[in-house]
Amino acid sequence: MSKFWSSMAKRAKPYVPGEQVEGPNILKLNTNENPYPPSPKVNDAMKNATNHALRLYPSPTVDSLREAIAQEQGVTKDHVFVGNGSDEVLAFSFMAFFEPGKMIRFPNITYSFYPVYATLFDIPFEEVPLQDDFTILPESFFQSEGGVIFPNPNAPTSVFLPLEKVETIIEQNQDHVVMIDEAYVDFASASALSLVHTYDNVLVIQTLSKSRALAGLRVGYAIGNPELIEGLSRIKDSVNSYTIDRVAMAAATAAIKDETYTKELTTKIIQTRTSVTKQLEDLNFEVLPSQTNFVFATHPSVPAQVIYEQLKEQGILIRFFNTELLHNHIRITIGTEEEMKQFFTALKDIISKNI
Amino acid sequence: MSKFWSSMAKRAKPYVPGEQVEGPNILKLNTNENPYPPSPKVNDAMKNATNHALRLYPSPTVDSLREAIAQEQGVTKDHVFVGNGSDEVLAFSFMAFFEPGKMIRFPNITYSFYPVYATLFDIPFEEVPLQDDFTILPESFFQSEGGVIFPNPNAPTSVFLPLEKVETIIEQNQDHVVMIDEAYVDFASASALSLVHTYDNVLVIQTLSKSRALAGLRVGYAIGNPELIEGLSRIKDSVNSYTIDRVAMAAATAAIKDETYTKELTTKIIQTRTSVTKQLEDLNFEVLPSQTNFVFATHPSVPAQVIYEQLKEQGILIRFFNTELLHNHIRITIGTEEEMKQFFTALKDIISKNI
Repeated sequence: MSKFWSSMAKRAKPYVPGEQVEGPNILKLNTNENPYPPSPKVNDAMKNATNHALRLYPSPTVDSLREAIAQEQGVTKDHVFVGNGSDEVLAFSFMAFFEPGKMIRFPNITYSFYPVYATLFDIPFEEVPLQDDFTILPESFFQSEGGVIFPNPNAPTSVFLPLEKVETIIEQNQDHVVMIDEAYVDFASASALSLVHTYDNVLVIQTLSKSRALAGLRVGYAIGNPELIEGLSRIKDSVNSYTIDRVAMAAATAAIKDETYTKELTTKIIQTRTSVTKQLEDLNFEVLPSQTNFVFATHPSVPAQVIYEQLKEQGILIRFFNTELLHNHIRITIGTEEEMKQFFTALKDIISKNI
Repeated sequence: MSKFWSSMAKRAKPYVPGEQVEGPNILKLNTNENPYPPSPKVNDAMKNATNHALRLYPSPTVDSLREAIAQEQGVTKDHVFVGNGSDEVLAFSFMAFFEPGKMIRFPNITYSFYPVYATLFDIPFEEVPLQDDFTILPESFFQSEGGVIFPNPNAPTSVFLPLEKVETIIEQNQDHVVMIDEAYVDFASASALSLVHTYDNVLVIQTLSKSRALAGLRVGYAIGNPELIEGLSRIKDSVNSYTIDRVAMAAATAAIKDETYTKELTTKIIQTRTSVTKQLEDLNFEVLPSQTNFVFATHPSVPAQVIYEQLKEQGILIRFFNTELLHNHIRITIGTEEEMKQFFTALKDIISKNI
């Protein structure tokens, strides 16, 4: 602690991102990145935008990108807010809609950035227990004092909450904003976007990091009624007028427009996910029903930590959880077919040696 | 006002950026952008970074860029914080070092984003009057209750405060952070960076938007003692782990390393500034001594608003101020020699017609 730090800097409990090891012989199945490259159209757009105009400020209102997102999602531009990664969009959402002193709710097993935001902005929070099968019990989120946030599908569980249950949470919190963090939604059966037309208190947050294979670019967005979007803009324009650079704007616009390519990638990943789940079950793993680009699993006899460590020795990175709530689970990002073959060769060996 | 907005969103008084009109026949001398393109090495670095690795998250600690800045500025990497434009760095600095309820000070004529940050984060502020010649009186910033921030050179005045006077402000505020916003410092005679080695309460903030001709890229940085840098990192890692994308990181690193090119641009702009000042004075303008890439001027008989509007009719954009404090002033960004010829042809005509 420094005497120069504000009370905000002192109370902060910063987020710790997953290991970002890079190397020619590393197989990264640990941070839910897409194993396939971004659309070739994204590359072209970026190279075209790398020009003399970089000397000029970008559009502060990010119009062309917001227009592209609006068209793809069937809303108008005033329903769309864009930020420097969905983490920034989430931070601005906490600032714009959650109130210091008013208790918000999120699941006790969820994206670990939520308590970080809440702590920074002095927003009290209740971590609502999931059910034994790791599903969300909608009723436990009704009538929240300050609002609700949860990912759908949830992370790191990969479990999806059906839309009719999501709707009851929104309906039972009409005086507060319900944020649905849909980072993984393109690998799931449905988005809550359709509810934006019916309810003015729902904010849906999505990202280009997962299904569009652009984690290295930092673009995320929120969709909600124009009153909410205006609230987000007020915060953004009080923090940083120009959050999206010229090249990122061109890249993201191209990515959003190339729906065919996105669909191709998500279809491949979902197919691989089905076979990965099957192979894990054949090795006696218990695997939660995944609607994301990762699977969450536990083995009845080989400890998660052993699996994690012995894979790491071979240059294969996965996530390992051994907290009280996530007793003995591992999380595996879905890679290419080839990568998952390499993974299973190593895994089978580890299981047979340690059983 | 929406019932869904937090008290923070309600009290926000967002910043309004300068006009961003683009077009083939527009001469933009209104937002202090560099008239020259970025270094060709920046383009090369960006094109090389536009590759498959975009599917992977970037470095959350921005190491290679921080290392490059540290080397250029003669400090170690733990003295350097990088953000998505210096506006974001400023926002994080307000959050990390200024305290709600404790009065900070900045000049009454200055970068208009400071009151925006202060209002958002509930930090009371005193707008300290400049002297009649638009210079800062150092004594008026001594013993501030909550800290101090000012640009050097100041904007929109273009006036530089000599380092020995800057040092007295730092020395007389040793219990609080003094932020020196050096957006324009590469066009000035000296940076306060040398003071970082002597004082632990000084934070120097710079940008790649001006002298490196990269306003469209969004990269800024702060240099200070490692305790301050850690404070900034705590805020950043509580808001957004990955603020700088892979391509921006490569571009900014190349820009920082190409010191020869930066020096070439700043030398040209300073030369043009000298001749622009002389030509304005020949037209009877009063011009403040500029150490920036713009000049701040007033005409004894032709009103600033008339000049602004008649230039605009011809597609030439400058900034015009007619607030009580900036009675009748215009601010003109220094363009290329060719652009300034075009500007003066139009201006001479306007002056002769309106005098």
